[in-house]
Amino acid sequence: MSDIAIQDRLFPDARCFGCGPANAEGLQLKSHPTDDGLVVATFTPWPQHDNGVGYLNGGVIATLLDCHSGAAVFHQADLRGWGPLPGTAFSYVTAGIDVRYRRPAPLEAEVSLVAEVAEATEDAMSCSVRLEFDGKVRAEATALWKRWRPRV
Amino acid sequence: MSDIAIQDRLFPDARCFGCGPANAEGLQLKSHPTDDGLVVATFTPWPQHDNGVGYLNGGVIATLLDCHSGAAVFHQADLRGWGPLPGTAFSYVTAGIDVRYRRPAPLEAEVSLVAEVAEATEDAMSCSVRLEFDGKVRAEATALWKRWRPRV
Repeated sequence: MSDIAIQDRLFPDARCFGCGPANAEGLQLKSHPTDDGLVVATFTPWPQHDNGVGYLNGGVIATLLDCHSGAAVFHQADLRGWGPLPGTAFSYVTAGIDVRYRRPAPLEAEVSLVAEVAEATEDAMSCSVRLEFDGKVRAEATALWKRWRPRV
Repeated sequence: MSDIAIQDRLFPDARCFGCGPANAEGLQLKSHPTDDGLVVATFTPWPQHDNGVGYLNGGVIATLLDCHSGAAVFHQADLRGWGPLPGTAFSYVTAGIDVRYRRPAPLEAEVSLVAEVAEATEDAMSCSVRLEFDGKVRAEATALWKRWRPRV
């Protein structure tokens, strides 16, 4: 696993709420590629990330899945030489994310994220991403990312 | 439009990050039914809700869509007499949400949310929900909610 997070390597000045290293009030998700082609992260929820019944909020889960899938896509794009185009800040943008909530996720313990790019062309990437705790999938999603091309 | 928000009427003590009236550090979304069967809300993003390029973050958008669809579902459940069952805090729980991002949404202006319950049985409800600004849909989702039944 690389020591430097994908976010810190590829966009250290970004202010994204979920994963921007430069957003002091954001979640600051840090994602790392593994040797077997996955991208992993851990996240410790904040007390206010409650879902109303003492578990991790579904919107925060969606935020983590979205940003973590982004890290996997940006990393894959970087490996393939599909970095940001002139006039854009990121190589790809989210077109959609389909989240399925499987089981409650804890509010007071570190959760894990695992992502894998399932399909990749320069035009679009599809990423499978899941949030786990104690060896069980708590939520999973398919995220679709499209190449950010500057308007002509 | 009702003066009292659905959240303040049905669960004033909830601490949900997106819509709990009792979560001082949450988004405190307030949703209201209209006379024509919709549920509406407005939300002013916080400065840290950046998507990394100066627009509203996709995860925050998903959080708003999720919680606002919940308000529509809880309101519909309340109208039909399907309130929370003994031993549960809410009448329904999110099973999934499929979000499609259509256009950037602003970070520095109030955005609008519109939800409509599309299908309702006591077992499950499907809700269409969208986030708009300046008359254009910025993101939309279908959220599936399932009846929260206490385990026997």
